[in-house]
Amino acid sequence: MFKLPRGTTDFTPEEMEKRRYVEEKMASTFKSFGYREIQTPTFETLELFTAKSGDSIIDEIYAFSDKGGRALALRPELTAPVIRFYIDKLQMEPKPLKLYYFGNCFRYDRPQKGRYREFQQAGCEIIGADTPEAYAELIAMAYNILKNVGLKNIKLNIGNLNIIDSMFTKIGLSKKDKKKLLPLIDKSQFEDVLSLLRDLDVPKDNAEKIIDVLQTSDIIKVKDFIKEDQSVKDELSNMEEIVDLLKNSFNVKDYQIKMSIVRGLDYYKGLVFELDASVLGAEKQLCGGGAYDLVKLFGGTDVSTAGFAIGFDRAILALEAEKFAFPSFKTDVYVIPVNEEMLVKSTEIAQNLRKEGILTDLDILRRGVGKSLKYANSKNAEKAIIIGPKDLEKDSVTLRDMKTGEQELVKIANILSKLKNN
Amino acid sequence: MFKLPRGTTDFTPEEMEKRRYVEEKMASTFKSFGYREIQTPTFETLELFTAKSGDSIIDEIYAFSDKGGRALALRPELTAPVIRFYIDKLQMEPKPLKLYYFGNCFRYDRPQKGRYREFQQAGCEIIGADTPEAYAELIAMAYNILKNVGLKNIKLNIGNLNIIDSMFTKIGLSKKDKKKLLPLIDKSQFEDVLSLLRDLDVPKDNAEKIIDVLQTSDIIKVKDFIKEDQSVKDELSNMEEIVDLLKNSFNVKDYQIKMSIVRGLDYYKGLVFELDASVLGAEKQLCGGGAYDLVKLFGGTDVSTAGFAIGFDRAILALEAEKFAFPSFKTDVYVIPVNEEMLVKSTEIAQNLRKEGILTDLDILRRGVGKSLKYANSKNAEKAIIIGPKDLEKDSVTLRDMKTGEQELVKIANILSKLKNN
Repeated sequence: MFKLPRGTTDFTPEEMEKRRYVEEKMASTFKSFGYREIQTPTFETLELFTAKSGDSIIDEIYAFSDKGGRALALRPELTAPVIRFYIDKLQMEPKPLKLYYFGNCFRYDRPQKGRYREFQQAGCEIIGADTPEAYAELIAMAYNILKNVGLKNIKLNIGNLNIIDSMFTKIGLSKKDKKKLLPLIDKSQFEDVLSLLRDLDVPKDNAEKIIDVLQTSDIIKVKDFIKEDQSVKDELSNMEEIVDLLKNSFNVKDYQIKMSIVRGLDYYKGLVFELDASVLGAEKQLCGGGAYDLVKLFGGTDVSTAGFAIGFDRAILALEAEKFAFPSFKTDVYVIPVNEEMLVKSTEIAQNLRKEGILTDLDILRRGVGKSLKYANSKNAEKAIIIGPKDLEKDSVTLRDMKTGEQELVKIANILSKLKNN
Repeated sequence: MFKLPRGTTDFTPEEMEKRRYVEEKMASTFKSFGYREIQTPTFETLELFTAKSGDSIIDEIYAFSDKGGRALALRPELTAPVIRFYIDKLQMEPKPLKLYYFGNCFRYDRPQKGRYREFQQAGCEIIGADTPEAYAELIAMAYNILKNVGLKNIKLNIGNLNIIDSMFTKIGLSKKDKKKLLPLIDKSQFEDVLSLLRDLDVPKDNAEKIIDVLQTSDIIKVKDFIKEDQSVKDELSNMEEIVDLLKNSFNVKDYQIKMSIVRGLDYYKGLVFELDASVLGAEKQLCGGGAYDLVKLFGGTDVSTAGFAIGFDRAILALEAEKFAFPSFKTDVYVIPVNEEMLVKSTEIAQNLRKEGILTDLDILRRGVGKSLKYANSKNAEKAIIIGPKDLEKDSVTLRDMKTGEQELVKIANILSKLKNN
């Protein structure tokens, strides 16, 4: 017997129905904001990912060579491929360019619950817009996507890397010092941040203020700390504008300022945000995004870019944890020919129903009415149509309600209207 | 600048809109026949594919090792993974089990028009049914899928490998001889078939009859040739029943008997069929399928299996070649705030429209009415809503028809009904 590769998974019909439901809700929300879908290949040249993330990424991804000796990699994320595509073929499109996508990604992680080596992401990029209203719209869209798929408890956190950076510059930290701090901040290890700041000879007073700002949700405190720096003041007033739009125009209430979002990735700048599903506990982050610089690094003409990625699999875990009632599979009609002679007519009736958009199945195993009804139940059939010679003489069939067991004789010509009125 | 890997492709918004349209039509047809969707991983253990197709397949696929030294391969097709999944987790499901799927596959081919190294397939398997009506339904579904996506000229060819096999046994050919013949028959090289039969000392009379049967579309000729063989007589009468159902119940007229379909793959048995789009010339085959044996080979409990695969990319090429009118992208409404002060109200109006399922975009670049209308045109907006301070005092906005240029003042409370009545 052959095994599923380690860290991957199959999806049953029930699981796929959930996934398609969520995908459809996400796609229709993207579209409602003027976004259009694109798709890139499953693998890329390895150098695309090392250029963005450094050589260390090779340890975490599926890298391989093709028969021509080209170094390739299964994509670990979708932003780099999308920006490659943009530079190659979409640079001349009118701006802002709004793109969304779904895609499987691959990471050579230790497999654990909700973390597979092949996983799906939904994501988007907005290219050529950096106004507060552009960012507010982006964040609101991420929030709406998760709300529209059916999640009840979503928390939005908004930060800004430029502000963080300026805070650290102000207290005299070097680039190298910052690099040491960011991972600790990212993991909310504020005790460790404090002791590292002490080691770096930052005055206790300043260090405590920093910790305070990193932990506050009060934008005034942030303002007080950075008041002299003009460039960051603009950034902060933009942040206020974003928050105002979210609150007043987009009706997003569950947000919080969180300066400790640093997102670990070098190419982010300015705005960063995350959306969490508290129901998931430690692995609660469903979405992360912000403004970033990548186009120039990849050889394109510099342009403002921002976007986000949603962990598709984790969004489904969150819905399940919230006991969301996914629509359940059903068959509209199950057609049962009582004997072989009824087959031609039964098949014709079934086919005519399908043409009208009715989900119709038919007994193709010649197993009689009793066993067929049992099978029809296993496929959640709402009705059964039993076709026998006597009824057929009267151009009629027996229509059975699978829930109540009630049966009635219906003219073949009236089956459709009968089904549609139910 | 980073390049797309050789033999792969990106899909633009226009292309993705076509693909999603076709996917949706295919999926709804599968569902209308009682099929449910599943999904398997993008890569499998290499041995899954060599077990099915022999070691020579390694030359045609992307095989690689993961960091744990496991031999993996990007899937070159979807039947083997689906059967692995079936044996692993679905064997206890009620029969017949009807499964469909979409998936990207990978082959290390020489890239050419319509043939990429990463390509998409749509496919299905029916497990646990081998009656003529099961096969007729399977073929009719493949035919209906291609019709429902919008293709006009589809040709269906039906063959049977057991009948071919029995014909060859009858004239005394060994298994080894047959293996030599099949590739020639598959490519319709009948001259070469004839000369090979001569080399194998098959009497001229028999050889010519064989060629005749391979080329005929007349089921009677096939019958005449194999009349003594009882097992094949049953197979032939099943074939007649399949054809009758297709003609009389499924209204499929464009079919032909074609005994020269051999499909190259060892695991097929009995029924085989192909669907062609004549508009595509040499690369016209869109769909191939039939009955096959794979479950037992993979270690499961023997059960009847049949299915087909549709070349998704080629189906789109065929639609384009037939000049099919795909639905075109549009934006329902483009909202234009005339100045910054209008932003909060404009955003709120836009967001309320989105909630009602209206595809709404909004100027987030503060570029004024003229430039915004130009951009709105580039996104095929049907209406624009221009929001200025004077109108807003009267709780109104200007609604512009983007085709005619006509404008009218509309109360904010009436925007939705106004849009829905258009």
